[in-house]
Amino acid sequence: MSAVLYAQVHLTLPAWVHDAVDTARVYAGDEDKMALAIELARRNVEAGSGGPFGAAVFGPEHRLIAAGVNRVVSQHASLAHAEIMACMLAQQRLQSARLNTLLHPITLATASQPCCQCFGATIWAGIDRLLIGARGEDVTELAGFDEGPLPADWIGELERRGIEVVRDLQREQSRAVLRAYAEAGGQRY
Amino acid sequence: MSAVLYAQVHLTLPAWVHDAVDTARVYAGDEDKMALAIELARRNVEAGSGGPFGAAVFGPEHRLIAAGVNRVVSQHASLAHAEIMACMLAQQRLQSARLNTLLHPITLATASQPCCQCFGATIWAGIDRLLIGARGEDVTELAGFDEGPLPADWIGELERRGIEVVRDLQREQSRAVLRAYAEAGGQRY
Repeated sequence: MSAVLYAQVHLTLPAWVHDAVDTARVYAGDEDKMALAIELARRNVEAGSGGPFGAAVFGPEHRLIAAGVNRVVSQHASLAHAEIMACMLAQQRLQSARLNTLLHPITLATASQPCCQCFGATIWAGIDRLLIGARGEDVTELAGFDEGPLPADWIGELERRGIEVVRDLQREQSRAVLRAYAEAGGQRY
Repeated sequence: MSAVLYAQVHLTLPAWVHDAVDTARVYAGDEDKMALAIELARRNVEAGSGGPFGAAVFGPEHRLIAAGVNRVVSQHASLAHAEIMACMLAQQRLQSARLNTLLHPITLATASQPCCQCFGATIWAGIDRLLIGARGEDVTELAGFDEGPLPADWIGELERRGIEVVRDLQREQSRAVLRAYAEAGGQRY
């Protein structure tokens, strides 16, 4: 097999995302931010555009910088988890590889606990606060996804790097999306 | 701040990569594969197109599927580590989110040990063999980069998931690239 080298990759959110978010809205509290992440996850399942995961990045004035949903299967990209899509798009918008060098604090809300890949990615992205809905064990129990190996004290590792972690925000609502995905026969990968 | 939502991201390799690789060549042994990863790292430093990191994905016939170099600063993407670029481009080429469902075995050669983000990404990418040049401590010692928190037994975690790990391949050659980057005043991020 000889072939031209691929030198570019192009990842996109589904078109419905433009209708699901309001970039002018103030997402004042942690609950508002998490509600958007879970709503993105829910709509991703409903639209069949990816796995049951959503995430969103917010700036210091509680406005949305970028949204993300899981696009792994649809875009043939194991990287394209919701948190990664949201952080990459936020970095593109701010034109900075580290979000919180420009705006502070930066909050990432994710409907489910980051997997081993997104755990590491969160450290480099320039996040100050990480809001988590469902736990890793919920993702495995309800939707059958492996979350991969994390450091034993993963929350401590994040907090030692200046990232505040808030868990169990609307955990039941996020669990409901995971359950709906499994009940609809959603793919595990 | 109200704005249009960003819904796409586009990441590219530098143009010189087309001259640096030969997609028809058989990279028969681990040494050949690692030499390409290190050569990509070296040229990335020389061209000023990114950090001192290179990686390449090979298929079962020892031919190159995709190459990657670090593009974090140039593309404003904390994700764009060499291993990630190589795996994403390989997945685009094979049109599969998991490389080794189509071809087996898949080998990823990386000039330096994967950081906490790339460690996790490697698990989901569908890799069977992971070839590593410089160690994490070399990256920190020589180029000043933080590798982030890995699980205590990160090699065991990979091997338990069917990923063979080979370390210290041409470690000195990869260390030389890290040293050259630091001596040229390369950015740490």
